[in-house]
Amino acid sequence: MFLLNGEPGHYVDVADRGFQYGDGLFETIEVLNRRPLFLDRHLKRLDHGCRRLLIPMPQSELLAAEARQLALESDRGVLKIIVTRGSGGRGYRQPEPIQPTRLLGLHPYPDYPENFQTQGIRARFCWQRLSVNSALAGIKHLNRLEQILARAEWRDDDIQEGLMLDTEERVVEGVMSNLFAVKADQLYTPSLTGCGVAGIIRELVIGFACDIGLPVHEIPLDQVEVLAADELFVTNSVIGIWPVRRLEQRVLEVGPLTRRLQNLLNQARMAEAQPCFAA
Amino acid sequence: MFLLNGEPGHYVDVADRGFQYGDGLFETIEVLNRRPLFLDRHLKRLDHGCRRLLIPMPQSELLAAEARQLALESDRGVLKIIVTRGSGGRGYRQPEPIQPTRLLGLHPYPDYPENFQTQGIRARFCWQRLSVNSALAGIKHLNRLEQILARAEWRDDDIQEGLMLDTEERVVEGVMSNLFAVKADQLYTPSLTGCGVAGIIRELVIGFACDIGLPVHEIPLDQVEVLAADELFVTNSVIGIWPVRRLEQRVLEVGPLTRRLQNLLNQARMAEAQPCFAA
Repeated sequence: MFLLNGEPGHYVDVADRGFQYGDGLFETIEVLNRRPLFLDRHLKRLDHGCRRLLIPMPQSELLAAEARQLALESDRGVLKIIVTRGSGGRGYRQPEPIQPTRLLGLHPYPDYPENFQTQGIRARFCWQRLSVNSALAGIKHLNRLEQILARAEWRDDDIQEGLMLDTEERVVEGVMSNLFAVKADQLYTPSLTGCGVAGIIRELVIGFACDIGLPVHEIPLDQVEVLAADELFVTNSVIGIWPVRRLEQRVLEVGPLTRRLQNLLNQARMAEAQPCFAA
Repeated sequence: MFLLNGEPGHYVDVADRGFQYGDGLFETIEVLNRRPLFLDRHLKRLDHGCRRLLIPMPQSELLAAEARQLALESDRGVLKIIVTRGSGGRGYRQPEPIQPTRLLGLHPYPDYPENFQTQGIRARFCWQRLSVNSALAGIKHLNRLEQILARAEWRDDDIQEGLMLDTEERVVEGVMSNLFAVKADQLYTPSLTGCGVAGIIRELVIGFACDIGLPVHEIPLDQVEVLAADELFVTNSVIGIWPVRRLEQRVLEVGPLTRRLQNLLNQARMAEAQPCFAA
């Protein structure tokens, strides 16, 4: 089910700049117990992305109301929000005024086996590189060809995620996830100053680590460091935290810090999924 | 007027990967005397882009027939072809099989003043940088946020084009055009191995230069070299060749080699615009 600018509809003007140029942003949100989880954080990131791309953010209250309305249709699902610069303008030149397009869509929750959470997944390194440009780093924009080419590198269903390096050979993230490494009881995650998406679960995990006194380092990581980690896991809003049990030839255990962070995330998810009562 | 997968229509499925991810390619073609100019070259580049992005190219004969059909509606216009990976797939993972979407649209020719061709244009250097990634270099893909951010840097209508540098500070191209510099009776144009679009007019101009014995160098250029050129011009399929009469504080003459190449291009355009007669 889709809401396009507030109305049911699933066809968009071919002149929309989202279709013409990938000129927009998106959010992917877990729906649990008919509620969109961490919605405030998603809308805050979307607002930040709009500011970076000079797109007027649709009213947060309106987006939140539409998101909550759609989420009522599903006990467990995925809500995707797309905001584009709308139609018009002359070539790359943006229209004045900009009338953004907003699309909300509710999708079934993917049928991931339970053991991806409990036993971990298998990952590989991708050949496709992420380009470095601070202007687009961190935000969840619609220019996703690098991810698509990376995901097209493998068809083996035993491999659930590919880790991507940037053109300077630093490990940045997974194709659809952020990456964390535990080494000597400290937590590491790649810095996202040049590329990558600053994920909502990544932000939560960093917060949990601070809460429990676990040192967190956002620094560049290389392949050798990642392969030498004690624990590895990947995160996004749909999968939560997936431990990595194998990366290329390296086999890892699902470690105690990964389990602890999974528990903290699940507590936060359950709290978010509580029905809210009017005062 | 639009043809969407062969039928009149101007609304596309919101699930189309062009809208979701910028997962596709485009061509922009001049229509003159009811004919799409240099159509074979455009379709060849589109085919090359499809191979690079692993999108099955729609039949060239079909695209050519639809392009010629649409062009009959206009003495002077711009024909845009978009090919996307279509709908489906799971997140970034591409669908199997891929059923590409093709959209052809005919637009009015922009009302550029005649003196942009004869007297030249004013250009500036952009702050926005192009990211470097050989996987996407050269092809005319739908991930165009860098161009949009660059074009949003100025609103002064006296400035017609912005020149873009890559993240390694090399001059690559204009926001919507390719760049050529003449220095000491030799022709220079930036190499496009890391980013940029390999334009059809760029390809033609390089060919004309070879025909007339003008040495052509595809090499990295920096800002100082560009500012020191004897002649500068920018090219694309809609504008043809626009001399640059001013770049930042530097004022240039419209030079003899620019004029000669303009004449050669116009001869080639006129030959393309001739009606074809059945044998």
